[in-house]
Amino acid sequence: MQKGLLIVFTGNGKGKTTAALGMALRAAGHGMRILILQFIKGARNYGELISLKKFEEVSIQPLGTGFTWLKENLEEDRELARLGWEKAENAIIHGGYDMIILDELCYVLSYGLLGLESVLETIRHRPEHLHVVVTGRNAPEKLILEADCVTEMCVVKHHYGDQGIKSQRGIEF
Amino acid sequence: MQKGLLIVFTGNGKGKTTAALGMALRAAGHGMRILILQFIKGARNYGELISLKKFEEVSIQPLGTGFTWLKENLEEDRELARLGWEKAENAIIHGGYDMIILDELCYVLSYGLLGLESVLETIRHRPEHLHVVVTGRNAPEKLILEADCVTEMCVVKHHYGDQGIKSQRGIEF
Repeated sequence: MQKGLLIVFTGNGKGKTTAALGMALRAAGHGMRILILQFIKGARNYGELISLKKFEEVSIQPLGTGFTWLKENLEEDRELARLGWEKAENAIIHGGYDMIILDELCYVLSYGLLGLESVLETIRHRPEHLHVVVTGRNAPEKLILEADCVTEMCVVKHHYGDQGIKSQRGIEF
Repeated sequence: MQKGLLIVFTGNGKGKTTAALGMALRAAGHGMRILILQFIKGARNYGELISLKKFEEVSIQPLGTGFTWLKENLEEDRELARLGWEKAENAIIHGGYDMIILDELCYVLSYGLLGLESVLETIRHRPEHLHVVVTGRNAPEKLILEADCVTEMCVVKHHYGDQGIKSQRGIEF
């Protein structure tokens, strides 16, 4: 039985986006068509953006360039989230992809910037073969209930802060 | 402060090897030289093997083709582990890499097929800039103590078994 899975990487630990990138890499090796929509990160010069250019099968689109997460009034972020989700919805239903990665969608959902019910409704009605991978902290309980596979990345130990080591090229970005 | 980190992905959940692959992808985008040593998986037609061929900076070497994990007498596995570790040690000390991924090394250590102390000793004496990423279930406590960053992949939900969904191309391999 082959069917499109709903896979969630959540939790406060490292490796959520990174695992999703690894899935893209693996799937690309099988010639699958992959779309990565980044809900938070802007179009910076991330290592993955450079690497993924080698793969015709993989598109990566940053949606969240404008998110500030600092506004007192969240209306602008809500509008950005809505526009981002329109793109995602269109890609899920009509894009002809084999795998769609919705990077940091949990974050956007946990801030209440998108309606969870309509997001789940779209995911439910995706093409049967389409794998959807969702990442981000604080995955909503209802998303977990509908998912086929959920992994929580748990922090055991983290090199920030306590040892004075900064975010490093090739590791965090 | 830039220094080579020791990063561990452990736990029973999905995404350990996948996150390590994502790290390789990200680092390759920055032109870093990467070696992936697979202690357990044999040289099958994994998606990642095909994809990683696109990157001159990334080498991937399966070491564990001969492991059976079924023998009553573990001597043969122990010898394979020893030969594998010789390669790893040589690559760590003399390989000139920026990142070395020791995939499923925790598994090998937890079976007692390699001496933990001598493994840690080699990792401690690596070149200062070299990032080492170790994956596998049951990371030994001493490895966790020495690591800069440890993430435990915790199973929240898994699609095997209970839903009758088989291991799928582009997802698990």
